[in-house]
Amino acid sequence: MSLKIAIDVMGGDTAPAAEVAGAVAAARQYGCETILVGDTEKIQAELAKHQTAGLAIEIQHASEVVGMHDSASDAVRKKKDSSIRVAFELVKEGKAAAVVSTGNSGATMAAGMAVLKRVKGIDRPAIGTLVPTLEGQTMVLDMGANVECKPINLFQFAYMGSIYVEQVLGKNRPKIGLLSNGEEEKKGNDLTRETHQMLKGTDLNYVGYVEGGDVYNGSVDVVVCDGFTGNVLLKVSEGLAVAIGTMLKREIESRPLAKLGYLLSRSAFAAFKKKINPAEYGGAPLLGIAGTGIICHGSSDPVAISIAIRQATEFARIKIEERLIDIG
Amino acid sequence: MSLKIAIDVMGGDTAPAAEVAGAVAAARQYGCETILVGDTEKIQAELAKHQTAGLAIEIQHASEVVGMHDSASDAVRKKKDSSIRVAFELVKEGKAAAVVSTGNSGATMAAGMAVLKRVKGIDRPAIGTLVPTLEGQTMVLDMGANVECKPINLFQFAYMGSIYVEQVLGKNRPKIGLLSNGEEEKKGNDLTRETHQMLKGTDLNYVGYVEGGDVYNGSVDVVVCDGFTGNVLLKVSEGLAVAIGTMLKREIESRPLAKLGYLLSRSAFAAFKKKINPAEYGGAPLLGIAGTGIICHGSSDPVAISIAIRQATEFARIKIEERLIDIG
Repeated sequence: MSLKIAIDVMGGDTAPAAEVAGAVAAARQYGCETILVGDTEKIQAELAKHQTAGLAIEIQHASEVVGMHDSASDAVRKKKDSSIRVAFELVKEGKAAAVVSTGNSGATMAAGMAVLKRVKGIDRPAIGTLVPTLEGQTMVLDMGANVECKPINLFQFAYMGSIYVEQVLGKNRPKIGLLSNGEEEKKGNDLTRETHQMLKGTDLNYVGYVEGGDVYNGSVDVVVCDGFTGNVLLKVSEGLAVAIGTMLKREIESRPLAKLGYLLSRSAFAAFKKKINPAEYGGAPLLGIAGTGIICHGSSDPVAISIAIRQATEFARIKIEERLIDIG
Repeated sequence: MSLKIAIDVMGGDTAPAAEVAGAVAAARQYGCETILVGDTEKIQAELAKHQTAGLAIEIQHASEVVGMHDSASDAVRKKKDSSIRVAFELVKEGKAAAVVSTGNSGATMAAGMAVLKRVKGIDRPAIGTLVPTLEGQTMVLDMGANVECKPINLFQFAYMGSIYVEQVLGKNRPKIGLLSNGEEEKKGNDLTRETHQMLKGTDLNYVGYVEGGDVYNGSVDVVVCDGFTGNVLLKVSEGLAVAIGTMLKREIESRPLAKLGYLLSRSAFAAFKKKINPAEYGGAPLLGIAGTGIICHGSSDPVAISIAIRQATEFARIKIEERLIDIG
């Protein structure tokens, strides 16, 4: 079985420079094999900037690009030769094992659905994200693919999250929490209350409602929510982390002694930044499509992209979509 | 007009010690007048620990307490002599100008509604919260009073937030954003899309959809959302701030040089902590009840409570509920 990773190199903020550099880094550091999908000329121009002799990097031409502001479904229907669609076609044809994309996440999901279809029994695929916690990592899903959800969708997200964390992160019987506005059963909205009743009777290690404060404290391994809430949660987190960093910097810079202290603490700050940097803990897996896809931030740097490529390789090896079939 | 503040001193985590100490501090530092509502004996025992000669602090006995786990509406209906209900009765009778509570926020809202009623034209009162941003403060509402909302509710929240920020924070024509999962009009869920259409045609300084990343960057003055999302947003923020602090501390403590650096930077960290401490930027105002109420964290310390008492005094002076009547 091929473990080549098809990379949509055209969709990111600095495409295709960061994507090509990321593929080169993944080949060198992790021995990953990749197929760069996009404008051949542009890709070749980027590749020429690197030493690529002996690296398993191929090119697959695609004439169109789905932009960040394109509507996801339109893009998939109208741009048949877009890099993201062609990347998924390579998986369908067995020429690649997984897709990594730095582009429009809605379009990546839509293209994956259109080309590879859903896993049998899954009504709505979801985008999962791993966030760093005091105890390790927690998967939050859905992070934005499904803005309006029904209880059955959240129910399936819980299963998909559980299987992913068990299979990919190697955690035995992951603890699953349903995000709500309080821990008591009477809290929540119509959606969470109905989902809670469904999850209570399952063989999952379901712990019930969790609150926003539980996302980063490591009390559960999977946090289940609708895509609207998940998107808000993750963007609020990113924004707050930036604001905290800036505020702290301002306070430090306004005091000479503190500034000196900061210089001495620099290595700690760097290690800390690395820990909370989304780029470092990898991309967001698509769960529920019949194949492997990982979405990275549009602003991912080559290091982040190389980590996502390595993740995709591991993820594809596990063939999680085959394990999901049991849910349905 | 009396500007005495009725304080429910029985509901908080360390009640009534922190509440009584907070009232003493508010009297000393800001000249605030207060009525401590709760168990007279316990209050007197706490007051005896302070120098209170010459301070304008009264006691109003109340025989019952609404606990954090009591259902809000039950508590209000069944515990007619609860400290929170009696506090609002004092406002109704004109003996106090506002209520400050460190107790169950749902019960505080329910008691305020039951005793003082809603402002004419407001279907659902909301709880607002001021969060610190890179530019100052932003009000997020609703933070949890209304788990299920209709477009008309969010529409009214936008007006209430605008009036509060203009009147209390003195900001001219506050910028109002509607929280969504993306900035484009086609994003959002059914609730936000309908609300967006309603807000577009108003005289508010409405800027359209904002994302989670805008909550802390100061790009708007008011962020409007339903209470489920607002609750998640605020609890995620609190949890993340704690996690970031802990992670950074761990990195610093594992490095001797960094630890020395930290000692030199301490004053900057202290100033920063003060800035992001919810206690320091005050309590959460109830908006839409016919009177003034401010909810503090159950774990508020005396400093936080004294600040909330000062806020309530200012807030009561403005008589915001009279300005809200124009909305209806």
